[in-house]
Amino acid sequence: MTPNRVAIRFEGQNYTYKQLYELSYRKAGYLQKLGVKKGDYVACLLKNHLDTAVVLVSLQLIGGVAVLLNNRLTAEELLWQLSDSKTGLLITERDFVEKISVVSSQLDRLTLVWKETIDAVPFEEPVILEEIELQAVCTVMYTSGTTGNPKGVLQTYGNHWWSATGSALNLGIHEEDSWLCAVPLFHISGYSILMRSLIYGMKLVLHDTFQPDKVIKVIKDEKVTIMSVVTTMMIRLLDSLGEEKLPTTFRCMLLGGGPAPLSVLEQCVERNIPIYQTYGMTETSSQIVTLAPEYSIEKLGSAGKPLFPSQLKIIAADGSEAGAYQSGEIIVKGPNVTKGYLHREHEHEKYFLDGWFKTGDIGYLDKDGFLFVQDRRSDLIISGGENIYPAEIEGVITSHPQIEDAGVIGVADPKWGQVPVAFVLTKADLTEEEVKEYCKGKLANYKLPKKVYFVEQIPRNASRKLLRRVLREML
Amino acid sequence: MTPNRVAIRFEGQNYTYKQLYELSYRKAGYLQKLGVKKGDYVACLLKNHLDTAVVLVSLQLIGGVAVLLNNRLTAEELLWQLSDSKTGLLITERDFVEKISVVSSQLDRLTLVWKETIDAVPFEEPVILEEIELQAVCTVMYTSGTTGNPKGVLQTYGNHWWSATGSALNLGIHEEDSWLCAVPLFHISGYSILMRSLIYGMKLVLHDTFQPDKVIKVIKDEKVTIMSVVTTMMIRLLDSLGEEKLPTTFRCMLLGGGPAPLSVLEQCVERNIPIYQTYGMTETSSQIVTLAPEYSIEKLGSAGKPLFPSQLKIIAADGSEAGAYQSGEIIVKGPNVTKGYLHREHEHEKYFLDGWFKTGDIGYLDKDGFLFVQDRRSDLIISGGENIYPAEIEGVITSHPQIEDAGVIGVADPKWGQVPVAFVLTKADLTEEEVKEYCKGKLANYKLPKKVYFVEQIPRNASRKLLRRVLREML
Repeated sequence: MTPNRVAIRFEGQNYTYKQLYELSYRKAGYLQKLGVKKGDYVACLLKNHLDTAVVLVSLQLIGGVAVLLNNRLTAEELLWQLSDSKTGLLITERDFVEKISVVSSQLDRLTLVWKETIDAVPFEEPVILEEIELQAVCTVMYTSGTTGNPKGVLQTYGNHWWSATGSALNLGIHEEDSWLCAVPLFHISGYSILMRSLIYGMKLVLHDTFQPDKVIKVIKDEKVTIMSVVTTMMIRLLDSLGEEKLPTTFRCMLLGGGPAPLSVLEQCVERNIPIYQTYGMTETSSQIVTLAPEYSIEKLGSAGKPLFPSQLKIIAADGSEAGAYQSGEIIVKGPNVTKGYLHREHEHEKYFLDGWFKTGDIGYLDKDGFLFVQDRRSDLIISGGENIYPAEIEGVITSHPQIEDAGVIGVADPKWGQVPVAFVLTKADLTEEEVKEYCKGKLANYKLPKKVYFVEQIPRNASRKLLRRVLREML
Repeated sequence: MTPNRVAIRFEGQNYTYKQLYELSYRKAGYLQKLGVKKGDYVACLLKNHLDTAVVLVSLQLIGGVAVLLNNRLTAEELLWQLSDSKTGLLITERDFVEKISVVSSQLDRLTLVWKETIDAVPFEEPVILEEIELQAVCTVMYTSGTTGNPKGVLQTYGNHWWSATGSALNLGIHEEDSWLCAVPLFHISGYSILMRSLIYGMKLVLHDTFQPDKVIKVIKDEKVTIMSVVTTMMIRLLDSLGEEKLPTTFRCMLLGGGPAPLSVLEQCVERNIPIYQTYGMTETSSQIVTLAPEYSIEKLGSAGKPLFPSQLKIIAADGSEAGAYQSGEIIVKGPNVTKGYLHREHEHEKYFLDGWFKTGDIGYLDKDGFLFVQDRRSDLIISGGENIYPAEIEGVITSHPQIEDAGVIGVADPKWGQVPVAFVLTKADLTEEEVKEYCKGKLANYKLPKKVYFVEQIPRNASRKLLRRVLREML
C-alpha cells in the first residue's frame, strides 16, 4: 500500500516497503528452490538483523511456517525443539556454527541453510500467496510449562492480525510512528513488532542487541515514538538516562514480560516516560491486557484491561467466576489467543476450558475491571524477560545418576528480576560446582541455577506434588 | 474499555461510553419486552438524534438486525422495503406520522414503535449478547441497482469491523480524535462513523442536519479532527468558509459519495483542508479505497488504494484482468464486502464473480496501483450524495397508463452534482406537470425528474436495451 515508506531501519540504513518486498521476494525464490513449500515448518535460529526480518517476511510470502528458536538455547535444547516440531530445514548463521554442528550430527534429516549463503543457490521465481488465510499457522514459538516439556505455541496469521489491530485500537496509530525493536525477533515481543510494522505500514527500528545509550540516542535523534521493553531493560534505560528526559515525540514505552516493581513505575512517571504496563504471553501473541493512557496513574500497578475484542475472566478455586478483588486463575479468550500447541491436539483440554485459555497465572480484577496480576503461573520464573520453567531445570538435574530428587524456585535478583535456585537431594556426595557443571550444555545459561542447596528431603505432598511454597520457606 | 471517554456529543451535551451503554441497556430492555429477539429484523426510520444512536446500539446489544430506512423515501417506497425485508417491527418518530399512517394502513403485520414512547412499556432486564459473531448480520441498507428494484444489502458485524480497522490502518487513530457526523445514520456513511466510534472508543459529534456554519464553528471550538462529507457538502463548506482556514487540529476531510470536481479538490489544497478522496458503496460497508495522505497531491483525482486487506481488480471487456491504465469494471473483495442481498441468495452469481463483488463501476489503475474511477455504474446518478438509479424512476413513469416508454439520465447540476431528467413517449397528450405530479408520492423528492422531455421514440437496441448514451446525445 505504501511502498515508499520506510519499513525497517537497521544499522543506520533505511529500507522502504518496496525494498523489503523485493529483498523478501528474492529470498522467497531461494527458499522455494531449496524446497520450502506452503505449510512447511522452517526453523530459524537467527539474531536480530535486517536479513532475519527478510527471511521471516519471505516465509510469509510463500506460506512457510517459521519455527523460531531462541538464540540462547543449548544444542541439546535445540535438538529437542527441532525433533518435537519435526522440522526438516533450519536457517541459521555462522555465529551458531558450534551448536549447530552438534545438532546436525544428531539429526540426519535436517537440512542446514546458512543465512550467509542462501543466495548462492540458483534463484527461481517464487509462487507468492495472493491471499493469506487467517487460520493458517504463521509462526511456532516454544515455551515450557508446568510439565517441563517445551511446547510449540501455534500462532496463526489471524492471531497476529488481531493482536496488531487490538494494540492499534489501544495505543493509536500515528503517521509518524516508529517502533524500536531491541527485543529478540524470535520472541513474540519482537516478532509482534515486525507484524505491526507490516500491518500498519510503520517504520521498525531494529537493533541487534539492547544497548541503553544507543537506544536513548536513537529515540532522540531519529524520533522513535514507541519501544517495547521488559523490566530489566527499563531499569538499565533509567540508569543510563540519569536526570535526562526523553523527547516528547516518544509516546509509548510498552512494558511487558512480568510485573514491574512500583519504584520503576514511579521513576518513569517522574521522568515523563509514558509507560504502558502490559500482560501477555506467547500464547496470546503478545500483550492481551494493557493499561490505557488515561489510567496510568490512577491504576498504577495494574496491567489494565483486555485489548478489544479479547476477553478475560478470573476463575476462583471452586471453578466459579470470581468477583471484584477476588483472586483466581486468569483465563483469556480472543482471536489473538493460540489455538493450541504443535502436535499436542490430544492434550487440548489440559490448556483450554470451553474455548478459554488457562494461563495458570493468578490475579484479580478491581471493581472497574482492571487486572492486577499477582503471580505468574505459580512456578514461572521471569529472568530478564525470559521465561524459565522450574520443571525443565528439575528434569535436567534429576537426570544426574547421583541425584534422587530436586526442586527449583525463583528468587529476587536486583539485575534480572528473578534467578533460579535449586534444592537437591543427592544419593552420593556432590559439590555445587558439579551440579552446575552438569547442567551446562543442557540448559541455556540464563536457566542455570545460580545457587544449589543440598537438602535431606524435597518437600512433596501425598500425591508427590512438589511444594514450592515450602522450598521458599526453607530458603 | 473506556467508560469515561465521551462516546457521543449531541446538541451541546456529552454522553460517555458508560452513559451510552446504560441508555442502550435500558432501551434494549424495552425492545426485548416489545418482542425483539436475536436475529429479528427491526426497521428504523429515524433522524440523526442521540436517541437514534441509542436505538442502534441497543439492537446490537440484543442481536436485533437494523433495517435502516432512508428518511426521504415516500410511503410507497417504504412499503416496498418493509415488505421485501419482511420486517415486523418499525421504530420511527412523530415527524414521520403522515407517511407512517399510510404505510401501516397497508401492512397489517407491522408493529409500530414510536421513539417518543418506547420507554412507556414495562421494562425488563435484557439478555445482552456476551459475544458477537462476526458472521452475524448487523444492518440492512437498501440500495437500488440496474434492475430498478431496491435490494437490501446485508452488512455483518465482521463487515463493519474490518471496515473500521481498515480505515484506522489508513487514517491512523489519535487519542484526541473526534469524528463529526452530519451525514445520515441510516446511510453507511453515517452508520460507519457510529461503528468506528464504538470500536475505537472515539467521540462522535452528531449533527441532526448539515449546517455549514455550525459545522465550521464546531470544528473550531470543539477541535473536531475528522469529518465525512459528500461533494455537495464540501462545496457548501468551502462557500461558508470563504477565505478562512480550518484549525490545524482538523486532520481529515473524508470525501465520499462520488468523484469530486478537480476545482473542489484544488480549493481544498489551497486552504490546507486535508482532503481524502474515497471510493466505496453500501456493499463495501463504506470506503474501500482511500487516497493516503502522502499521495494527496501527486495523485490528485485518484480515489487511492484499497484499504488493507481489501483487494481490487479491473476486469476488461473480454473478462481478463486489465493492465495499467486500461479501463474496465471495478471488482472488489475483502472482509468488509457484503455477503449478498437480503432474500436474494439465489441471485448471488449476478453480483459476484468467484467471490469478488462486481461494482458495475468503471475505472482503471495507474502503474502504481492507484484507482481512478471514471464512471459510476454506467447509469447511476449521484445527487447530493444520494444514489439514484434511473431504472427505478423509469419503472414509476412507465406505470402511468398513458405512457408507453421512458428513459432517465443524470445531468450536471451546480448544487447537487447531478439531477435526473426523464425522456417520455406518451400514448396520449400529457403535460410535464402531469408526469411530475404522477411521480410524487411514488418517489422520494430527490429522485423526481427535474425535467421531462417528450420524444417520439426511446432509443433502444435490438434486444430492447435502453441506450442512455443516445439520450445524452439527444439532450
